[in-house]
Amino acid sequence: MKGDGFPMEKTLGILGGVGPLATVYFADLIVKMTPAACDQDHIRTIVSNNPKIPDRTDYIHDRRKPNPLPMMIRDAQMLESLGCDYIAIPCNTAHFFFDEIQKNVGVRVINIIEETLKYAKKSVPHLHRVGILATSGTLSSGVYPHVAERFGLECVIPDEDTVQKLMHIIYDQVKAGKCADHDLFFSIVDKMKAAGCDAVILGCTELSVIYYELQIRRPDILDSMTALAAACVQEIKGSVLL
Amino acid sequence: MKGDGFPMEKTLGILGGVGPLATVYFADLIVKMTPAACDQDHIRTIVSNNPKIPDRTDYIHDRRKPNPLPMMIRDAQMLESLGCDYIAIPCNTAHFFFDEIQKNVGVRVINIIEETLKYAKKSVPHLHRVGILATSGTLSSGVYPHVAERFGLECVIPDEDTVQKLMHIIYDQVKAGKCADHDLFFSIVDKMKAAGCDAVILGCTELSVIYYELQIRRPDILDSMTALAAACVQEIKGSVLL
Repeated sequence: MKGDGFPMEKTLGILGGVGPLATVYFADLIVKMTPAACDQDHIRTIVSNNPKIPDRTDYIHDRRKPNPLPMMIRDAQMLESLGCDYIAIPCNTAHFFFDEIQKNVGVRVINIIEETLKYAKKSVPHLHRVGILATSGTLSSGVYPHVAERFGLECVIPDEDTVQKLMHIIYDQVKAGKCADHDLFFSIVDKMKAAGCDAVILGCTELSVIYYELQIRRPDILDSMTALAAACVQEIKGSVLL
Repeated sequence: MKGDGFPMEKTLGILGGVGPLATVYFADLIVKMTPAACDQDHIRTIVSNNPKIPDRTDYIHDRRKPNPLPMMIRDAQMLESLGCDYIAIPCNTAHFFFDEIQKNVGVRVINIIEETLKYAKKSVPHLHRVGILATSGTLSSGVYPHVAERFGLECVIPDEDTVQKLMHIIYDQVKAGKCADHDLFFSIVDKMKAAGCDAVILGCTELSVIYYELQIRRPDILDSMTALAAACVQEIKGSVLL
């Protein structure tokens, strides 16, 4: 698709649908973070909003459940075949499968876990202990602590009761198209802070939906979807509106 | 792409980028209007958010300017080749080129002008005179009056001074990533009502952006982007949340 009339600016592929609302908010962030004075200044993006991808957390917990990986690889290859120069996946849990997806395409998949931890380090001076608010799939897969080590950060994982509350917000509220219980959400943030966390990472893009809808701007709440969008715009445009 | 693992539910292609913010809001409407209890209930959509498409209004006024049609046809064909069963174009001005785009693909392009007028008829009892708020390109192309005749509706076109104010809101504010002048917007609506319109149609998706951000719900303001999204969800899911 390149070299036949399209300008040479890079194209971003969004492997989405996981979930669908987080995907459109991510695409919205890409537009709003791009320095632009007219339509044509914006980044060309192709969004595969494919909510038919099987649930990631279900499969991580029980390998007899439908495996989301083949459909994610196919969507990534589709985006590559359309001329996308980068792929972003606005879903933390999907990053359990990151190496397999990256291995199956020839373009860079921008990693939400790495970009979030980079963004956390840069945003909060002297950051040491970060609480990870995420699905049980993301938490049990260990993707955050694994990468955090490289950044000199210590990850605090919520207790089982808190994880259940997070799963309730993510699945029964945001993914079900209902209003999130904001008091419950902030009580979880407070609990992590009381447990000694310098900041918390919203390590699930359904939690990013809450952050986005409430327009939260708290230096101790670090949003993974914002970090990924900022990294994509910076990479393609060389600057970003934050 | 069909029949090899994807469920048989229809896929929606969004030919977007015209403009980019309207495109993501349109994708957001598709998610929010879909009756769904989990990710997998949502509609699979593929969004080509291609802001590099040349300006439609520029070309309608001056045929020496870059022609947006070849890139729109290519994007439509790309969406068809990916297995999209329907194509939606969340841009009224682009519908000046509707017949040419439809002719070049084998799937149905859902027409925003027709769907908006249908929606207007259905929403407002005894509707007769509708004001059309749109770009000068849409207005001079006559797409609304042409179709409105079939629905027994009379279109009122704003005067030149009002069109210039609309162009200012659309190009210098919404497309430029700035806040829209809401007082100016509502003063235009009032002026059209005072001129005898029963209702006004927001016949430009940049005006839909204002409607969307302000969460306007006025029976005399009829939004083309909402009408198009409702038609797409109804077609694919058989019902729609309005």
